[in-house]
Amino acid sequence: MKTITIGLFGAGRIGRLHGENLIHSFRNVRIKYLVDAYLNDDMKEWATSVGIEQVSTDPQVIFQDPEVDAILICSSTNTHADLIESGAKAKKDIFCEKPLDLNITRIKEILKVVEEHKVRLQVGFVRRFDHNYCGLHQAVSQGKIGSPNIVRITSRDPDFPSMDYLRYSGGIFVDQAVHDLDMARYLIGAEPVEIFSYGSCLLRPEIQDFEDVDTAVTVIRFENGALATIDNSRKAVYGYDQRAEVFGTEGCVCMSNDTPHNAVTLTGEGVCSEKPHWFFLERYNQGFINEMTDFFQMLQSDAMPSVTGHDGLMAVYMAEAATMSSRQGRPVKIQEIIDLYN
Amino acid sequence: MKTITIGLFGAGRIGRLHGENLIHSFRNVRIKYLVDAYLNDDMKEWATSVGIEQVSTDPQVIFQDPEVDAILICSSTNTHADLIESGAKAKKDIFCEKPLDLNITRIKEILKVVEEHKVRLQVGFVRRFDHNYCGLHQAVSQGKIGSPNIVRITSRDPDFPSMDYLRYSGGIFVDQAVHDLDMARYLIGAEPVEIFSYGSCLLRPEIQDFEDVDTAVTVIRFENGALATIDNSRKAVYGYDQRAEVFGTEGCVCMSNDTPHNAVTLTGEGVCSEKPHWFFLERYNQGFINEMTDFFQMLQSDAMPSVTGHDGLMAVYMAEAATMSSRQGRPVKIQEIIDLYN
Amino acid sequence: MKTITIGLFGAGRIGRLHGENLIHSFRNVRIKYLVDAYLNDDMKEWATSVGIEQVSTDPQVIFQDPEVDAILICSSTNTHADLIESGAKAKKDIFCEKPLDLNITRIKEILKVVEEHKVRLQVGFVRRFDHNYCGLHQAVSQGKIGSPNIVRITSRDPDFPSMDYLRYSGGIFVDQAVHDLDMARYLIGAEPVEIFSYGSCLLRPEIQDFEDVDTAVTVIRFENGALATIDNSRKAVYGYDQRAEVFGTEGCVCMSNDTPHNAVTLTGEGVCSEKPHWFFLERYNQGFINEMTDFFQMLQSDAMPSVTGHDGLMAVYMAEAATMSSRQGRPVKIQEIIDLYN
Amino acid sequence: MKTITIGLFGAGRIGRLHGENLIHSFRNVRIKYLVDAYLNDDMKEWATSVGIEQVSTDPQVIFQDPEVDAILICSSTNTHADLIESGAKAKKDIFCEKPLDLNITRIKEILKVVEEHKVRLQVGFVRRFDHNYCGLHQAVSQGKIGSPNIVRITSRDPDFPSMDYLRYSGGIFVDQAVHDLDMARYLIGAEPVEIFSYGSCLLRPEIQDFEDVDTAVTVIRFENGALATIDNSRKAVYGYDQRAEVFGTEGCVCMSNDTPHNAVTLTGEGVCSEKPHWFFLERYNQGFINEMTDFFQMLQSDAMPSVTGHDGLMAVYMAEAATMSSRQGRPVKIQEIIDLYN
Repeated sequence: MKTITIGLFGAGRIGRLHGENLIHSFRNVRIKYLVDAYLNDDMKEWATSVGIEQVSTDPQVIFQDPEVDAILICSSTNTHADLIESGAKAKKDIFCEKPLDLNITRIKEILKVVEEHKVRLQVGFVRRFDHNYCGLHQAVSQGKIGSPNIVRITSRDPDFPSMDYLRYSGGIFVDQAVHDLDMARYLIGAEPVEIFSYGSCLLRPEIQDFEDVDTAVTVIRFENGALATIDNSRKAVYGYDQRAEVFGTEGCVCMSNDTPHNAVTLTGEGVCSEKPHWFFLERYNQGFINEMTDFFQMLQSDAMPSVTGHDGLMAVYMAEAATMSSRQGRPVKIQEIIDLYN
Repeated sequence: MKTITIGLFGAGRIGRLHGENLIHSFRNVRIKYLVDAYLNDDMKEWATSVGIEQVSTDPQVIFQDPEVDAILICSSTNTHADLIESGAKAKKDIFCEKPLDLNITRIKEILKVVEEHKVRLQVGFVRRFDHNYCGLHQAVSQGKIGSPNIVRITSRDPDFPSMDYLRYSGGIFVDQAVHDLDMARYLIGAEPVEIFSYGSCLLRPEIQDFEDVDTAVTVIRFENGALATIDNSRKAVYGYDQRAEVFGTEGCVCMSNDTPHNAVTLTGEGVCSEKPHWFFLERYNQGFINEMTDFFQMLQSDAMPSVTGHDGLMAVYMAEAATMSSRQGRPVKIQEIIDLYN
Repeated sequence: MKTITIGLFGAGRIGRLHGENLIHSFRNVRIKYLVDAYLNDDMKEWATSVGIEQVSTDPQVIFQDPEVDAILICSSTNTHADLIESGAKAKKDIFCEKPLDLNITRIKEILKVVEEHKVRLQVGFVRRFDHNYCGLHQAVSQGKIGSPNIVRITSRDPDFPSMDYLRYSGGIFVDQAVHDLDMARYLIGAEPVEIFSYGSCLLRPEIQDFEDVDTAVTVIRFENGALATIDNSRKAVYGYDQRAEVFGTEGCVCMSNDTPHNAVTLTGEGVCSEKPHWFFLERYNQGFINEMTDFFQMLQSDAMPSVTGHDGLMAVYMAEAATMSSRQGRPVKIQEIIDLYN
Repeated sequence: MKTITIGLFGAGRIGRLHGENLIHSFRNVRIKYLVDAYLNDDMKEWATSVGIEQVSTDPQVIFQDPEVDAILICSSTNTHADLIESGAKAKKDIFCEKPLDLNITRIKEILKVVEEHKVRLQVGFVRRFDHNYCGLHQAVSQGKIGSPNIVRITSRDPDFPSMDYLRYSGGIFVDQAVHDLDMARYLIGAEPVEIFSYGSCLLRPEIQDFEDVDTAVTVIRFENGALATIDNSRKAVYGYDQRAEVFGTEGCVCMSNDTPHNAVTLTGEGVCSEKPHWFFLERYNQGFINEMTDFFQMLQSDAMPSVTGHDGLMAVYMAEAATMSSRQGRPVKIQEIIDLYN
């Protein structure tokens, strides 16, 4: 297998995670550059320790180096679109953390550039690489449950992000539910037609100031008549609650939460087991490794990305529709959103 | 404890079940009459074998006998309203299987009669007496999960009823989901404000002839901002799927299916356990006993029914709203339905 | 089906339970007599309420009545042998609660009488009729796990019986483990050859006065080379702990505890579910019904009992071997015990 | 934190695993040498790829280099004792895979050398670092179940090793059960006094040629009166079966198997979930990482090893006692084995 040369953007938590996962999983990968606009000594030390060859604050070192096969975009959301555009023009394959951008028009622009330059772009929907969601998807794709008719997803975060984060997050549907919307579409294997959402602000009244909610339920109708329900909360005191199921003509497949260990204690007080993992880094630890493995294997081959720019865009359309539905109190067609941006 | 004298209407499956449960659970209960319009030898033999004193096809024997304290209405739906009306006028306490009637105007009429004659009417929502749903409700009422913010219910039947039944059933929301709508309202402990439903006909195209669907998802907003999701199917090939959960500010409580036994077999093929109970008679076997116990204990006391005529009416309002929402493609307020019948 | 006429000995807790289970399960059963040496008003009232025709303190009313087909022996242990003997001589079929007697010589005598008079004797090992143990046994008998090579049983009571009871109970192996020894033999489907037990007195030092222990582990070797382990305790603070598994050449089948309901509560403190049922009356509630059903169906047919006097005797041999092993610190062959009583 | 310099013996499966786990988990670790008597190109390539500086077939390069702080012994069992002895004399801290040696006299010799040279020796009982066993041990050590009175362990391999391996393995108790014997002692937190084992050859008659068995049950009495049961099999067709529980005066804590994912499929055929992980590399994947982390943290501190040479020796004493018990058909005291080697 040929050695793949990577340029990494961003040495924050997720950038380091992806970088280390690649380096530890494969011998024939080389991360030649770390580029971070806020490069500091700690980042430099980290880069050295894992064998990254050069560090810089200038993205051009990556784009101008013909040795670089692919880029990992793990910098802040507002840099994603520009880096994708430049990367595509420099003919690099691209892995980009979600969201591609908060602005749908801009997403459409860069997807066009990606297409024109015939590079491959993979979007970071990590749950598609989680062992439990994979168990679900596999059961569906192997036909074990017949035609999927209902998808049911519960997705609750352990606690609120900071108010600063929330203010610019785009709201619960764009920021949190987008993963569930993508998963519903992925599991059903058909395109969504219409969405209806209720949102309530039951935990933090102050987020109403920017029209956000902390509790939401969503139903989706797909083009083939299949249906989905999603429920979201910003705060589940017992940890990250990530469950899903697909119900079909021949059966149902359900996944539940993972826990740090499975020891169960029975006492006079009751029977107690562990809470779910606290949050996504613990929960999707192996998923992040699988995601980089998948991206790396694509780079080694002629394959197309398993999560495409179109997938990223569709999830954002769905999130927009859910937001609009929740605010306007009516079902919203995906086509309405598409038309809005045409 | 005083002996309670009962008049039983209907010796079909559910009438016999309630009758036997009462007789086997309590020494001081006496079922003096079985009245069934289609009385046959088998019913007579059954009545004798369980110690019922008289059988008749004439309801008046029950209403005219001052010894009768209470009536159990287990005859066909179209007889419910008249029997309740006559029973109330005869000053009998009443247990009536759901639905009270398919016509809301008629339900309102008989509830008025019940109120005027100051008799007690309990409606047969058996799930409120099931050990697992009781475990849910108890956790909520004991404050273990804080304020309930999301209710999530999955309710799927093992197979379609007959086409004849379906044709006059009132549709999936009125016939099947009504139990789930009642349960959502019961678990949240607040009144519903608005409902949105999607229905799809994915399994039996022919039921579209009478505007019915076989697959449905519903979301509900309650007056306190709490939300619910329900998903229904007419056919779960693995048996009766009855799960629910309540998520609140301090935690979440979830119930799952019961199975005939808990033995699990691990082989080279996989790890296999039992399917859920096949249908409601097996699943709610103990619930039916608890329900009669509850009714009997009410009769022994001055207590009011634990499931009232108002509960029955509200569930039907909700079912109507869900049906209308599914057909008109818009959220429907409960008040709209109430106003329709004023 | 012909009507079966029964004579019931003993109106204590278990006598009433068996009596009511028979009456409530079958139309064509008649309990003509209740005989109890300590007959009191409460027993009489109970007998009347369930339709038992006559009460007496004299066993002869039962033995001398040719209408009586079968007897249920639910009186105290010290009466079992004499009642079986008289019952057999009077040509009644017999259900007798375990143990047949505490004295092996006496058990052998009465089994001889039973055989000579060609009556059928069923011994009360209720676990063989429990849904979960049946699930285990069925998986084995259907060949799902191949040849059974290891049986593993955990059997722990929720609390000590009274010291008075313990003093005359015969010790933990005879009183408590006898059910597990029978179950191991039943699940393996072969005869035991040798037993080794360790007993410890870790909870109630005072029971050492009568050579008893409160904590024990036992291993058994069967004639076909299969092995078993059993662990017992007199006090599991979380309730009645009844688990078992069978491991074979093609797989393993495991059963776990039942609980009052399956609601699970997740909070910041942890994930909590219900404790197992408190004790055998709750846990084997349905098993007792199934046991009477099985006995009744045998009475209706020419079948032999599903749990025989030989089964009862073998379990006592095993319990004696375990007791001797625990006291003498050596493995004890079943044949040693058999020879002791020849 | 200071950088730790390591010499690694053995580049087989387990040597590579430990090496990579150390390198990927810590920045300040340096594996200076790989020494393998059967060094080949593939090993050299692996060493280079993970940053190991030098490779050799000569152990002396490690012992003679004063930079080397510690050694990892992952070579074949017959080399363990000599490497420990040389390592201790060269004042290196030592991690050695189990078993220290198959010969108890030799184990005692090298432990003496280790003690004389005041180096630290950690033995590779990986299960002590597994998340589930840790959950058990933690519940016990935190007093959640009171005094531990019964330990129950099920430990079954997915399939037989090769006949060549089996022939020199020392038998099922020394080779397989040794982990369970160590775990029982670890969980009880007291020294074992006596052991009784039954072994049967039910699957592979040919291993009787070297006095081995494939199916075994063991009971242990500890000095404090606590008891343990262990059951072992060489072949569980459904995968690696690793379960354990500790029962005490205040409760019980149980661990079960881990599976590749938790998706459960319900169909008309039944309810199916995943089999346990296939074998120890999958099952103890994280345990191996935790083990190296523990060893590395010890090296960074003045702490003593969490698994000592004494632990290794005691487990071998227990395995010898179990073997002797199984062959001689009698309980064997640990002191007997100790005396044998004095």
